[in-house]
Amino acid sequence: MLSVHLESGRVEVRDTPQPERKPRFAIIRLLCGGICNTDLELQRGYYGFSGTPGHEFVGEVVETDDRGLIGKRVVGEINLSCGCCDWCKRRMGRHCPHRTVLGIVQHPGAFQEFLTLPERNLHVIPDSVPTEEAVFAEPLAAACEIMDQVNFPCSSQIAVLGDGKLGLLIAQTLSVNGYKVHQFGRHPEKLRIAESAGVQGEVVRSHLPKAAYDWVVDATGSPEGLRQAVEVVRPRGTVILKSTQHGMVSVDTAPVIVNEITLVGSRCGRFEPALDLLARGLINVRDMISDRKKLADAPAAFETAARKGAMKVLLT
Amino acid sequence: MLSVHLESGRVEVRDTPQPERKPRFAIIRLLCGGICNTDLELQRGYYGFSGTPGHEFVGEVVETDDRGLIGKRVVGEINLSCGCCDWCKRRMGRHCPHRTVLGIVQHPGAFQEFLTLPERNLHVIPDSVPTEEAVFAEPLAAACEIMDQVNFPCSSQIAVLGDGKLGLLIAQTLSVNGYKVHQFGRHPEKLRIAESAGVQGEVVRSHLPKAAYDWVVDATGSPEGLRQAVEVVRPRGTVILKSTQHGMVSVDTAPVIVNEITLVGSRCGRFEPALDLLARGLINVRDMISDRKKLADAPAAFETAARKGAMKVLLT
Repeated sequence: MLSVHLESGRVEVRDTPQPERKPRFAIIRLLCGGICNTDLELQRGYYGFSGTPGHEFVGEVVETDDRGLIGKRVVGEINLSCGCCDWCKRRMGRHCPHRTVLGIVQHPGAFQEFLTLPERNLHVIPDSVPTEEAVFAEPLAAACEIMDQVNFPCSSQIAVLGDGKLGLLIAQTLSVNGYKVHQFGRHPEKLRIAESAGVQGEVVRSHLPKAAYDWVVDATGSPEGLRQAVEVVRPRGTVILKSTQHGMVSVDTAPVIVNEITLVGSRCGRFEPALDLLARGLINVRDMISDRKKLADAPAAFETAARKGAMKVLLT
Repeated sequence: MLSVHLESGRVEVRDTPQPERKPRFAIIRLLCGGICNTDLELQRGYYGFSGTPGHEFVGEVVETDDRGLIGKRVVGEINLSCGCCDWCKRRMGRHCPHRTVLGIVQHPGAFQEFLTLPERNLHVIPDSVPTEEAVFAEPLAAACEIMDQVNFPCSSQIAVLGDGKLGLLIAQTLSVNGYKVHQFGRHPEKLRIAESAGVQGEVVRSHLPKAAYDWVVDATGSPEGLRQAVEVVRPRGTVILKSTQHGMVSVDTAPVIVNEITLVGSRCGRFEPALDLLARGLINVRDMISDRKKLADAPAAFETAARKGAMKVLLT
């Protein structure tokens, strides 16, 4: 089967044997994959990664112990947890210390014709959700995670910094959940995508407003984002950190301490609320797709995804 | 009158005119001042400070509009707020954007024979609390602030990193409030001070325990402290930042995000709970005094306070 392979910055497509199925695992035929910024970071050396990337996918179950899953269209949670530890017992396998992570940590990713995941990681996609929208379930779950971590008071005003893919999903998710969202970015055409979900986009010309919001989400994907967020947030306010980037970030902790700011790191989320939002058609993901390429053209797809201004590139 | 003056790293004692009293302000005769790490940072150039430092003090009110205060022994909140803004209305004048700060930002400090503060900043000290203990009210209020910001579940286990003055006050405060506190430091003789308050001290030989506590307070006063705290805290746990230091700190935000850690900046606190703890004799501050010097000997006092291993140096 075809399989994408990342190594030392190079993207190759290889012919590899189909994966074997372990008990309680499913074999899934890839229908659609989404290239995420994390995949581009992996390419650059994040986690010292080499192997098959890909953790945003929609697939069809072709082999499994659970007969009811066969033939179903599914998305899958990316953390493969042990199922036994304290974290797993608390249904927080996303933090299981023994976990592997699909396409990121010691489990081959989704960018291949057939992938494997434990049955318990799979979620059947409602029929009403097209495959090209369902592929956004994983990053949308990461957006929903914010509301699992932070209790925003009703009708809070929230600033979202960054108008990249994750920023657009976060801004829309918060907006359709009843919060007033101002999204700050550099690209009017991107900011426009979230408008249908009620987000008010603001093009950043020079400076962001200072001490203006009690809640700020940093989704800039840049080391500058945290510094900006600390300026934008009010004293005693909260900054949610959604920008994973590799390497050290220089932070002046003095304003964080003097203004008693809370910083909340936020990563993966539950898939249920994300699939629910997609099924209700509340999130504009269609306009976030900038290109589609065949799995065999993965090297070109990675190149396109890495281009300045690119949005979601799908592998089909 | 005698007045300590900091400028370009030099500590001098000058003869200056007694301050004039503005309406609703009190003139206070200094009985005792405490040299804080922030004073040493001011000496090094933090906030580009030049002027009279000092924000930990006990004094006697000698002149004021409120006759009931005359002759009383008082401590004073250090933030001079406008009284009119949204922050002040919410009784959070500590974050008033128009504030000045005693001995730190545009208000002459306490290290002089007579200082001034608004009457509303003053707290009368219970007779049972000796002056040399009451001088700890300000840093103890900063320790108490943690409990105003974070809701620890009952009988939480909390790690306090650092065995300096603030670390010892924090560890004791949390312990006497019913939490199980493990304090990590390098000095057995300092860790011993907090033992009478029920704190379990642990001398750090090489490495701190990893992912071991849901709650960690960084009171190391060093840029290394934040990195250590992020290692010691469990996923989804909370680190309280109590180490004000000048300049940029390099942080790897990846573990903060991947492990969904919350960082809470924490500064000044209300004086009421601090005076209550002192009145109940629950905090061992006596053993934290390493030297006493006359106000006229302030240069020597600053030198002593800056020595490795020094604890609280008092000016009398």
